[in-house]
Amino acid sequence: MTENEGTPRDTARRKRDVLARLEKEMDVWVASADGDGRPHLVPLTFLWDGEHVWLCTRRTNPTGRNLAAGGRTRLALGDTRDVVLVDGGVTTHPSDDVPVAVIEAFAAKSGWDPRKSGPAYVWFRVRPVAVEAWIEEPEIVGRRIMRDGVWADGT
Amino acid sequence: MTENEGTPRDTARRKRDVLARLEKEMDVWVASADGDGRPHLVPLTFLWDGEHVWLCTRRTNPTGRNLAAGGRTRLALGDTRDVVLVDGGVTTHPSDDVPVAVIEAFAAKSGWDPRKSGPAYVWFRVRPVAVEAWIEEPEIVGRRIMRDGVWADGT
Repeated sequence: MTENEGTPRDTARRKRDVLARLEKEMDVWVASADGDGRPHLVPLTFLWDGEHVWLCTRRTNPTGRNLAAGGRTRLALGDTRDVVLVDGGVTTHPSDDVPVAVIEAFAAKSGWDPRKSGPAYVWFRVRPVAVEAWIEEPEIVGRRIMRDGVWADGT
Repeated sequence: MTENEGTPRDTARRKRDVLARLEKEMDVWVASADGDGRPHLVPLTFLWDGEHVWLCTRRTNPTGRNLAAGGRTRLALGDTRDVVLVDGGVTTHPSDDVPVAVIEAFAAKSGWDPRKSGPAYVWFRVRPVAVEAWIEEPEIVGRRIMRDGVWADGT
């Protein structure tokens, strides 16, 4: 990442880079917490539909319980140096309520069609509220590229 | 990671791999939560002293506040496929209370000596309570290699 040092990306470039990574990457770190403030963190395969991050996991595992009850998550793409963090509001959906195009794109991407795994698996739709993106120290300033659900470039 | 498929590592091997990564990797994902159950997640540089993960950040940022108040974290090493997750109890320390050897090893590793950044920065010592390690689906069984602070191989 050092090629970037000293030449921080502008907001539009960071947004473009984030959207490209949401399109192409396979997994995302999913942070959640229970009502007692106990943090949880797992990697999950995700699908980006252009507006939301879709996740699918068991309703009864810690992440499923936390997302269903708390309605909030913080996601991170995989790289600890080329950082992308997404705070989002979460809604919970059985497979029947999820657009078929989303399920099929998720299945094609991941090789796993959750409809075949039964009703224990539910979907979580994450709507980004805040996004941060930075590569190393020179990009810390300007890292908040979305606030209150609005991209910092006004779109 | 596919070379591993079908030949899951045993507990001793996973433990050895986890300890080697704690020795050599630079950053860790740090999940925390506030008292309302709002999750937070950031990457931080860490130092492993053989028993604890040491982190250093501002006392007043969200991670600093959450760790100081909640005393709990869940850490993940950087890779979403070669997964290492560590649940830990956290204690908070000013630089004066941290072993000099820890601070100097941290500074040598990271290039940053927090003592030069003033008292806004404090240290968080994470004692692992539970550790999970798996590479892909064949290793999901057997992933809990530490429980209640005890390695599954009995050490």
